[in-house]
Amino acid sequence: MKTVIIVGATGFGGLGLMEIILRHPEFRIKQLVARKDVGSPVDRVFPHLQGFLDMTVDDPAKINYSGIDLAFFSTPDRAGMTMIKEFFDRGIPVIDFSGDFRFNSVDTYGAYERFKNMDDKHLAPEILKHAVYGLPEMNADKIRTAKVVGNPGCFAVSIMLGLLPAMEAGLADSDTIICDGKTGVSGAGKNPGEANFYPQRYENVNTYKEGKHQHIFEVENMLNSRSKSAKKIFFVPQIVPLNRGIMSTMYAPVTKGFDTKRVAEVYREYYKGKHFIIITDKSPNTTDVRGSNRCEIRPMVDERTGTLFVTSVIDNLVKGQAGNAIQNANIICGFDEKTGLDVPAFYP
Amino acid sequence: MKTVIIVGATGFGGLGLMEIILRHPEFRIKQLVARKDVGSPVDRVFPHLQGFLDMTVDDPAKINYSGIDLAFFSTPDRAGMTMIKEFFDRGIPVIDFSGDFRFNSVDTYGAYERFKNMDDKHLAPEILKHAVYGLPEMNADKIRTAKVVGNPGCFAVSIMLGLLPAMEAGLADSDTIICDGKTGVSGAGKNPGEANFYPQRYENVNTYKEGKHQHIFEVENMLNSRSKSAKKIFFVPQIVPLNRGIMSTMYAPVTKGFDTKRVAEVYREYYKGKHFIIITDKSPNTTDVRGSNRCEIRPMVDERTGTLFVTSVIDNLVKGQAGNAIQNANIICGFDEKTGLDVPAFYP
Amino acid sequence: MKTVIIVGATGFGGLGLMEIILRHPEFRIKQLVARKDVGSPVDRVFPHLQGFLDMTVDDPAKINYSGIDLAFFSTPDRAGMTMIKEFFDRGIPVIDFSGDFRFNSVDTYGAYERFKNMDDKHLAPEILKHAVYGLPEMNADKIRTAKVVGNPGCFAVSIMLGLLPAMEAGLADSDTIICDGKTGVSGAGKNPGEANFYPQRYENVNTYKEGKHQHIFEVENMLNSRSKSAKKIFFVPQIVPLNRGIMSTMYAPVTKGFDTKRVAEVYREYYKGKHFIIITDKSPNTTDVRGSNRCEIRPMVDERTGTLFVTSVIDNLVKGQAGNAIQNANIICGFDEKTGLDVPAFYP
Amino acid sequence: MKTVIIVGATGFGGLGLMEIILRHPEFRIKQLVARKDVGSPVDRVFPHLQGFLDMTVDDPAKINYSGIDLAFFSTPDRAGMTMIKEFFDRGIPVIDFSGDFRFNSVDTYGAYERFKNMDDKHLAPEILKHAVYGLPEMNADKIRTAKVVGNPGCFAVSIMLGLLPAMEAGLADSDTIICDGKTGVSGAGKNPGEANFYPQRYENVNTYKEGKHQHIFEVENMLNSRSKSAKKIFFVPQIVPLNRGIMSTMYAPVTKGFDTKRVAEVYREYYKGKHFIIITDKSPNTTDVRGSNRCEIRPMVDERTGTLFVTSVIDNLVKGQAGNAIQNANIICGFDEKTGLDVPAFYP
Repeated sequence: MKTVIIVGATGFGGLGLMEIILRHPEFRIKQLVARKDVGSPVDRVFPHLQGFLDMTVDDPAKINYSGIDLAFFSTPDRAGMTMIKEFFDRGIPVIDFSGDFRFNSVDTYGAYERFKNMDDKHLAPEILKHAVYGLPEMNADKIRTAKVVGNPGCFAVSIMLGLLPAMEAGLADSDTIICDGKTGVSGAGKNPGEANFYPQRYENVNTYKEGKHQHIFEVENMLNSRSKSAKKIFFVPQIVPLNRGIMSTMYAPVTKGFDTKRVAEVYREYYKGKHFIIITDKSPNTTDVRGSNRCEIRPMVDERTGTLFVTSVIDNLVKGQAGNAIQNANIICGFDEKTGLDVPAFYP
Repeated sequence: MKTVIIVGATGFGGLGLMEIILRHPEFRIKQLVARKDVGSPVDRVFPHLQGFLDMTVDDPAKINYSGIDLAFFSTPDRAGMTMIKEFFDRGIPVIDFSGDFRFNSVDTYGAYERFKNMDDKHLAPEILKHAVYGLPEMNADKIRTAKVVGNPGCFAVSIMLGLLPAMEAGLADSDTIICDGKTGVSGAGKNPGEANFYPQRYENVNTYKEGKHQHIFEVENMLNSRSKSAKKIFFVPQIVPLNRGIMSTMYAPVTKGFDTKRVAEVYREYYKGKHFIIITDKSPNTTDVRGSNRCEIRPMVDERTGTLFVTSVIDNLVKGQAGNAIQNANIICGFDEKTGLDVPAFYP
Repeated sequence: MKTVIIVGATGFGGLGLMEIILRHPEFRIKQLVARKDVGSPVDRVFPHLQGFLDMTVDDPAKINYSGIDLAFFSTPDRAGMTMIKEFFDRGIPVIDFSGDFRFNSVDTYGAYERFKNMDDKHLAPEILKHAVYGLPEMNADKIRTAKVVGNPGCFAVSIMLGLLPAMEAGLADSDTIICDGKTGVSGAGKNPGEANFYPQRYENVNTYKEGKHQHIFEVENMLNSRSKSAKKIFFVPQIVPLNRGIMSTMYAPVTKGFDTKRVAEVYREYYKGKHFIIITDKSPNTTDVRGSNRCEIRPMVDERTGTLFVTSVIDNLVKGQAGNAIQNANIICGFDEKTGLDVPAFYP
Repeated sequence: MKTVIIVGATGFGGLGLMEIILRHPEFRIKQLVARKDVGSPVDRVFPHLQGFLDMTVDDPAKINYSGIDLAFFSTPDRAGMTMIKEFFDRGIPVIDFSGDFRFNSVDTYGAYERFKNMDDKHLAPEILKHAVYGLPEMNADKIRTAKVVGNPGCFAVSIMLGLLPAMEAGLADSDTIICDGKTGVSGAGKNPGEANFYPQRYENVNTYKEGKHQHIFEVENMLNSRSKSAKKIFFVPQIVPLNRGIMSTMYAPVTKGFDTKRVAEVYREYYKGKHFIIITDKSPNTTDVRGSNRCEIRPMVDERTGTLFVTSVIDNLVKGQAGNAIQNANIICGFDEKTGLDVPAFYP
């Protein structure tokens, strides 16, 4: 049994952690921390938790480090940087949901900031070099001993899992990969604003940050560390009137000699033994994975146009966030990575 | 460990049973039976079950009775009557989701048929007298030894749990109780038709079967068996663009001397120890219970008009159907009634 | 051709006015005024208006009174009180969307404030006595010469149109009428907040302000001015995952001797010649009226329980707001009340 | 004033025609014909039309050709072929919504059939050579004198309008164009089935007919008739939980020398004077065009990857179907093409 703390407990990331930990046999929550809702019972913030979690939200100033085995930070970019240092210095592993520790050098972090049109310096540069990118299907060995894990962005998870086998096997015969991403509204977080305003969302699709979404940076950074040749990603995120779910559709000219059968073999081989990856030959639905930690991937080749086409679906709040984080936590703690995560999707 | 069969496995009722049993430590599914999808792997019918349930749907003619401890019938009115007899005769307890065994006499069944403007005779009258109405919060003692349980209608569950304490304590000072019911679309089942046609449903509310819904009959029948004086229910069902969820709002002139505080005390006392009933003093949301087996009830008195007002919310597919059935099954098998059912709502 | 100004132009009320006026042959917009979005072209606020309305939003301080024939105030309670005085003093008729001029005495306004648990004084008491309640089906004669019209609340429109014939004919045999109201999310306005937060709204029904909604006050005030005996309304508003639409279901013990046929006759007779009222004998759908200025009403009697049951559906943004306001404006200006409003619902 | 007949009146295509014609000053409906709902008043099929259209649905056998100026066929592939011949032989122009007359030779039709994996012969080959592809922004001159117009497929409209300027100007530097299409559920028509089953649709995105959708054929056929070099389209349709709306996102390597500014100039120049085409530099929303006959297009170049990226949004039931058909009808009849179509989108 490991004892954890959740910082940023009252957003959807924190909620996702609480919900999974409630059914997890090996984790126990010791403290819930957030800037919002301080002093509130958590079941007033989330009424469906009544009777399941009898805790109050604490101010970040009141963090109690004693007896903590693991810390989750479900906080926005730069909000947790200095607090995370406190845990790091005490030797408590941290899994962070922001972009702050998805890179392991000051230079790469600087490039990330510039990609976002920002220019802020990292506030805990001495930790950065220990940071491990927390995509277990790619990085489990490093995660096992990590002190700081940068849990990937939700879109990044869907794109990277969809493209990793193709990149490593050199299946894409172009410098640019097209990624067309559709996300549900919960991706915009728990604060009401234009992005999650019901009258605008309930019957709308729109693009945004075309070619400029911050997850592009981490995707290129990690994919290219595994790719035979450097690739660029042109990623166009779109909001669709789902609550949960991401579907990424990815396109590139296929390398000569690969048809659907061979490409599917590459994918099945690559993900052999990866419990949460489902390689399929049917059209994926986001409902296939809603509420689950799975990523369903369908690789195919359109012979007529010579196009490699990969569809990847996840639940943005589970495999795209809290579920993936618990998977990381399981690995760090030496548990089976499936612990607490092996439930089917919620349907209908 | 008990071995069960599910007849009518490929509708939402059957799916709900499979999903709960997958996380239930004491039940094991031996056979899936349905008229539709015979011969299909169940994970082709429900792709999100891939890897969780490796079974094929069998024809009703191929039911194998040996080694079955319990049978679930998730079939429409009259579809399972004669098949259920086969189980009954072998001493296998049956939990039936239709209206066929919600009454325990041929006369009452006949009156039910007439209420529905039908005139069919019961095909297993000798079993009827053994039938037990399967609302555990009301009938647990009888359920414990029942051979045939009539699992209640989804609307009936929400109305009866909302009214039982008021009826038994005589809180309603009128002959008629007004029940205004709102249900999600999944209540119309898994066959595509007008009632679940997306373009008509996605932005619509409508009433239907005003004062004529078949659940009225079972509600009056059971409530009046517990009420100080006979009451009639005027129930107006409505479809709202939810997938899951029922909210029933119920109204009656309040008996003199009762205010919100006293009424709430009656309800809390009545449901003391009933694990799945949440008495609240805030406005209920269907999201508080979506995916859970809970019924959240808020009783209040509007002093200005002297009205007893009760709101009751459930998930129509869980406490309104499969969850309640598993609760019944737990009771029959001597398990803790919470087994497999003690999970929070799915949110957001 | 009449020239109008819209104050509060960038909310849904203002938008509704603009959309109708764009197809109205007799109204022309001279100025758009709002506190929000000042200086923005209105087609940046509402991109679908591009090419239809080439105007910029002005600050309230810059209102130009010259040449204005009519003013619409789509502003919250108390926000427009003193500004409206400026128009009144210049003899320009005003149609106000708030509760400020729905009453015609300081005493009644005070009682309204207390009903809302407020205690503010009216800031333009000398205008109040000229205020006319703007429900054309009830008050057309007074509206014709009104200087200040209080456009009714959206729920109030649906309830009053549903109950007026019953009240005047004495069809309800009780002191209290039960009103169960379902509204779409757009009723919460155009500012993002908890009430229109997509992840909470997309799959939820909840009650709120049970027996305390501010529209109760105006409904009782106006109904009782026409009723044979004073009635109280117990009204429970609910939010359902619609964007547009209100369905009110209303219940009372029916007066002896009235069945569905007779009740329907009363309603048809009462609304004879009222173009926007549809009396029906089928179950109403909110989609029957979405985008139109109609109110569809279905009165019936449940013989079994002796209950008068009335269903009333409107589009909360049209007959519940901007459409009704234009209908008032047509009457004030001497146009046919249908002008600009005679379009079918938007379906699907 | 022209007199028209609608064959296939009770689907969404027929409904769209009726709704537009109701506000169109120059068209009058003489007869409604369909296989379904024969003998029903059309306002029983579509209750929102009550009071607007007092007509009954006739059997196809009862078509009355006398006095008809124009015929609309909103029927599936091959359902209207022989009936259309009857109109053609009488010299009555026909606008057909199916794929039957989108090609003007037996050879091309045969290739279309094979693309669909069908092998049926055309049943009115002598008419085929007169068929005109009914995309007014491309083909207005031919439409003006056409006897048979093949109204384009909904996806085809969005893709072709998005790509035509790029194709003619040679902006795409590859043989294949990637088209990622998102459609609302109403695209699946008015018969309940798996594709429009609410519980599966309300919270789901899925791909289908990847690279195989029948609209690909007409798009390639027409685009290549205007393109400098032959292109292939890899089109992946997806269903998103909208009711109305199509968003197509299109990708190709950009020809050297073109940036966003120059590309936008090409598009603005190409569509100069085309009333329904909006070239924008903001992210398009399907809500910008819902209910309108507009197509909003945003062309841009992602400099970092050298990608031409075009977003195109339409309402699939208006510009994608009935609105475009009325635009064609206006052109054939010599009316201003905007007649009856110049209304803003329905929002929210």
